[in-house]
Amino acid sequence: MKKVGIVGGSGYTGVELLRILLRHQDIELTTVCSRTNAGMRVDQYFPSLRGFTDLLFTDPVDADLQALDLVFFATPNATAMHSVPALLKQGVKVVDLSADFRIQDASVWQTWYGQTHACPELLPKAVYGLPEIHRDRIRNAELVANPGCYPTCIQLGFMPLLEAGIVDRSTLIADAKSGVSGAGRGASVATLHAEVSDNFKAYGVAGHRHLPEIEQGLLMMGEGPVSLTFTPHLLPIVRGIHATLYATLRDESLSEEALQSLFEDRFRDELFVDVMPQGSHPETRSVRGANTCRLAVHRPQNRATVVILAVEDNLVKGAAGQAVQNMNLMLGCEERAGLEILPLQP
Amino acid sequence: MKKVGIVGGSGYTGVELLRILLRHQDIELTTVCSRTNAGMRVDQYFPSLRGFTDLLFTDPVDADLQALDLVFFATPNATAMHSVPALLKQGVKVVDLSADFRIQDASVWQTWYGQTHACPELLPKAVYGLPEIHRDRIRNAELVANPGCYPTCIQLGFMPLLEAGIVDRSTLIADAKSGVSGAGRGASVATLHAEVSDNFKAYGVAGHRHLPEIEQGLLMMGEGPVSLTFTPHLLPIVRGIHATLYATLRDESLSEEALQSLFEDRFRDELFVDVMPQGSHPETRSVRGANTCRLAVHRPQNRATVVILAVEDNLVKGAAGQAVQNMNLMLGCEERAGLEILPLQP
Amino acid sequence: MKKVGIVGGSGYTGVELLRILLRHQDIELTTVCSRTNAGMRVDQYFPSLRGFTDLLFTDPVDADLQALDLVFFATPNATAMHSVPALLKQGVKVVDLSADFRIQDASVWQTWYGQTHACPELLPKAVYGLPEIHRDRIRNAELVANPGCYPTCIQLGFMPLLEAGIVDRSTLIADAKSGVSGAGRGASVATLHAEVSDNFKAYGVAGHRHLPEIEQGLLMMGEGPVSLTFTPHLLPIVRGIHATLYATLRDESLSEEALQSLFEDRFRDELFVDVMPQGSHPETRSVRGANTCRLAVHRPQNRATVVILAVEDNLVKGAAGQAVQNMNLMLGCEERAGLEILPLQP
Amino acid sequence: MKKVGIVGGSGYTGVELLRILLRHQDIELTTVCSRTNAGMRVDQYFPSLRGFTDLLFTDPVDADLQALDLVFFATPNATAMHSVPALLKQGVKVVDLSADFRIQDASVWQTWYGQTHACPELLPKAVYGLPEIHRDRIRNAELVANPGCYPTCIQLGFMPLLEAGIVDRSTLIADAKSGVSGAGRGASVATLHAEVSDNFKAYGVAGHRHLPEIEQGLLMMGEGPVSLTFTPHLLPIVRGIHATLYATLRDESLSEEALQSLFEDRFRDELFVDVMPQGSHPETRSVRGANTCRLAVHRPQNRATVVILAVEDNLVKGAAGQAVQNMNLMLGCEERAGLEILPLQP
Repeated sequence: MKKVGIVGGSGYTGVELLRILLRHQDIELTTVCSRTNAGMRVDQYFPSLRGFTDLLFTDPVDADLQALDLVFFATPNATAMHSVPALLKQGVKVVDLSADFRIQDASVWQTWYGQTHACPELLPKAVYGLPEIHRDRIRNAELVANPGCYPTCIQLGFMPLLEAGIVDRSTLIADAKSGVSGAGRGASVATLHAEVSDNFKAYGVAGHRHLPEIEQGLLMMGEGPVSLTFTPHLLPIVRGIHATLYATLRDESLSEEALQSLFEDRFRDELFVDVMPQGSHPETRSVRGANTCRLAVHRPQNRATVVILAVEDNLVKGAAGQAVQNMNLMLGCEERAGLEILPLQP
Repeated sequence: MKKVGIVGGSGYTGVELLRILLRHQDIELTTVCSRTNAGMRVDQYFPSLRGFTDLLFTDPVDADLQALDLVFFATPNATAMHSVPALLKQGVKVVDLSADFRIQDASVWQTWYGQTHACPELLPKAVYGLPEIHRDRIRNAELVANPGCYPTCIQLGFMPLLEAGIVDRSTLIADAKSGVSGAGRGASVATLHAEVSDNFKAYGVAGHRHLPEIEQGLLMMGEGPVSLTFTPHLLPIVRGIHATLYATLRDESLSEEALQSLFEDRFRDELFVDVMPQGSHPETRSVRGANTCRLAVHRPQNRATVVILAVEDNLVKGAAGQAVQNMNLMLGCEERAGLEILPLQP
Repeated sequence: MKKVGIVGGSGYTGVELLRILLRHQDIELTTVCSRTNAGMRVDQYFPSLRGFTDLLFTDPVDADLQALDLVFFATPNATAMHSVPALLKQGVKVVDLSADFRIQDASVWQTWYGQTHACPELLPKAVYGLPEIHRDRIRNAELVANPGCYPTCIQLGFMPLLEAGIVDRSTLIADAKSGVSGAGRGASVATLHAEVSDNFKAYGVAGHRHLPEIEQGLLMMGEGPVSLTFTPHLLPIVRGIHATLYATLRDESLSEEALQSLFEDRFRDELFVDVMPQGSHPETRSVRGANTCRLAVHRPQNRATVVILAVEDNLVKGAAGQAVQNMNLMLGCEERAGLEILPLQP
Repeated sequence: MKKVGIVGGSGYTGVELLRILLRHQDIELTTVCSRTNAGMRVDQYFPSLRGFTDLLFTDPVDADLQALDLVFFATPNATAMHSVPALLKQGVKVVDLSADFRIQDASVWQTWYGQTHACPELLPKAVYGLPEIHRDRIRNAELVANPGCYPTCIQLGFMPLLEAGIVDRSTLIADAKSGVSGAGRGASVATLHAEVSDNFKAYGVAGHRHLPEIEQGLLMMGEGPVSLTFTPHLLPIVRGIHATLYATLRDESLSEEALQSLFEDRFRDELFVDVMPQGSHPETRSVRGANTCRLAVHRPQNRATVVILAVEDNLVKGAAGQAVQNMNLMLGCEERAGLEILPLQP
């Protein structure tokens, strides 16, 4: 059985990897690293795991990561890039959940992330881990850059429209709303319950780090330059992203039914993208805890603007779930292994 | 002292009128009608009012509304229209918080509200109660149609752009998010805590009743036809609307600073519209309980798409507060009377 | 493979049964009844189930329940009692999640539930489905009365103290707090999001229907009469009960360590009761979606009052999960089958 | 007009003092100190105050506090005690919202707060600011120790019972639940939205700092030693405390009606304590933003255990509102001045 490990196991994406991997039948999770909690039982730190694991947190410097088949990095940005080169040399595969390898152009990365990249030579080798586009490359990848939470559902939502070439590529709008777990588990005033609860606001309207990642992805769908207005908002919920996407039809004779068929055809064979029936309004809770991105297609008043609704759990299809989906492809497991999780309702 | 009454005092806009009017120094609230609760003390039904009133609910058929100077209707749609004609004949002024008199064209109203209008002859007499546009007409009005919650902040947000004629009128988008109190106090599964909490979704994307109201208002700002894509969403909060508005600049040489000045100039003398400093992200909580609409202006990446952020408390500037603002104008009180309320923070 | 069905599949305990049973490897769910939704696809009503079932809702009068091995009743109180006698006669086993068979004394039931019991002759046959006490009787039962949500964790929390006879039986206090899903999925004003959210209150202090059920259970633990003060409160959360239990030690020389051992010994072999380390504060979220009751034992200031903290998910160990645990015992499956669910964190 | 200032103006009790004092007609707020934000406009930091103040934050070392009539300390514990002696010498009155002067016995304070008290000689001079007990002493006080949030409602709830000597003083229980704003505005993981939301837990069961403060207060009501079991819990709400209090009647012949009268008589002349009608369940929201403590009296099943329900807004009657009430008494204003605030509903 293949052996895997997690570096950065005490954050929200870390514990979500734990939740999924501890019930995965085809791999063995042998190592969970956390500098801060080294030596502590994992289920002492996360009592929700009591009864499911006896693992202790290891300090990453003490962990024998080279002996593993695959390592997940669930670390803050600009951390993985310092450890990944050595691991790859040892033949260990890597899925990086941070942003270190998502942007192909190192100078763009440096502009948005404010520092020099530690191993730009690896960027061409890194495969962008959106299986719905790059499945075959992921199967053979040694290093997968797991997509950001917003980028996953925004790219999936625009994908059929851009691939088919039926919308104006220069006036795309993504009005996106995310639950607060997307901000991570660090102590901060801005994400206190007393600040977030019974409240709602936009943030980063002038420019969010996911913008270049999304535009890089959209550019590869169909032909021609792309321009996206991306407005993130903070939802007073824990898990869930809802992206409301707007695009202008080039040909207004396309009916809502035709658009619906376009989406259904594009995702028919995808395990983790669900196109809902016409007229639907997917809700974030319908995918909570599950690795699904649910989409709905609308053309209100039969006007030129198409509205796509896309929901995902930012910690699952937007992070840990997609990372396991990528691992499954990289290690030759069934793509769905460990990911057949029914969402909690209510 | 002028005497006023409320018909429909047991819903959320009703109790919000009570909260404001019971502390209003210049008028006397003498009558609160509720068919269901007739005879019960108002503060028994709403314990938050204990110590502030001794009023009992009256059945509307028993209430001596003709003796009042002004009556608020906080009733479900298609209720006020049956009582308003008689009151106006008696010289009683009316502020209707429902949708009965908001649409000037009775056939449009009938299409969206699904029934015949009871007094279409009054529609030309009804003044649309958005003081930032119709202040002078409101002062002299006998019947004011208080705007809907979404329409208030969406119209205020687009107003400077459309009046100045600097954006494309055919590609307007309003991505709006509302707290659940906007759905009223009726028993329903869809607005149960267990359905709404830790959840988020769009609704009515195919067509929401506020669309014709908003388009009617936008049409009067500047010249030419208007087309709006309006996408409402349900927020897991009690009070608050956040509208994220998108418009395309006709002239891309206009700087973000120039747009900021345009907004500041337009609303400089408005008591209840607050243009925040450039780069701001207004939050719904900053206006909770207050009669303020707060706006921020953005032009991300200096591209052609302008993004306006607008927040209001749907029960105050979006309903009861604006209704009292209209009453103040109609009865000759100071426009701010009773409305200088500091929002709760946090 | 054994075949089972659900009557009352459109409420919260119904959909929770669906979530668990659709992933249960050892039984087949063949029938889901709902009068209101008969003929509709189950996953149309609950989109969270898309991809996991093709079942349609059946009207209970059309369903061939007699052909099943076991039927769950997730119906409102006073419904199951009309159908259960006929099913039992056909040899179909029943787990009733409502209150119809929980109280052994029909006259007590009638006092608290306000009507005549339809089949009091079945009460002696009904086994109270708390496996931690009645496991052997449940294995042989034809009819199991699944315990109420509050009664489950309150009985488990007091159990070691009362069985050991070390606390005063006449001054027991249970200060219990429940999430709103415990109130069910019916339309009601009291459980609207706008009423419950950012709010907290006690209810039913004068007398809650779970009081006689709990006292009946406590009475069977140890010797002598029992008197409980039970104060339920409504939490602004969806799932979860936290019971804070108070009891007075008869012998103050018993240390907190001795109490801790007492609890650990009592539940050592229980799969679904977890005694946390001394000094712990279990949180409702740590059992969300899981069939676990987590307990912690405290003796503050080393005084005579023992404080037990107990948490459970009211829809799982407090309803559907415990029902499946009972089914597993009744049908000879492994007790843990289908119930090894990791809680969502966060 | 009397001049007052706030030290520690950027926390939750600080901004709540601002909300109240900026609308107080009889005093002038001239100074708001915050080391971190010195030089920044107060309404830039708290946009909810835009339009209500032009004040800037001052560094406390630069502020001319000696020129004021009264200073509020809304600082973390163990801060005020370093500045208060000098101010008192200058004749400036002080209301301290922290715990520095609440415990009369310096050694007890030192045990619970983990450090040496800086000015134990002032403790005998400090008046405990619970007006319902110490009104006359507060009027003449130079230094008022504003009570803690839990202690306020727990003392008010037990007060009539202990003063009348009708309950056992050795078996008192306070099961208290607080909103998260009580934990203050510091960055911390434990109070993140993603940790607190849709969750509930007890904390500090082994011993909370408010325990000695409450027991000190209860001791002064009636005769004899007192023993309290105090269990605090964290509610997923922003504002509000609900204390459920349990006491055992010495004389079981006392009816619920008699208990109700006892409470009504005790608080008849109190402006800010509201005894609800028999059988009521006060909710935290009914006092949100208001300086009211609402009480209800129950004697379930007519047994020996009395249950008192007490709610307050922890930031108002539990902190800033009570501080202003104390200020009103100390400066000779009307006790209700600035505090006639109607709670938001819903």
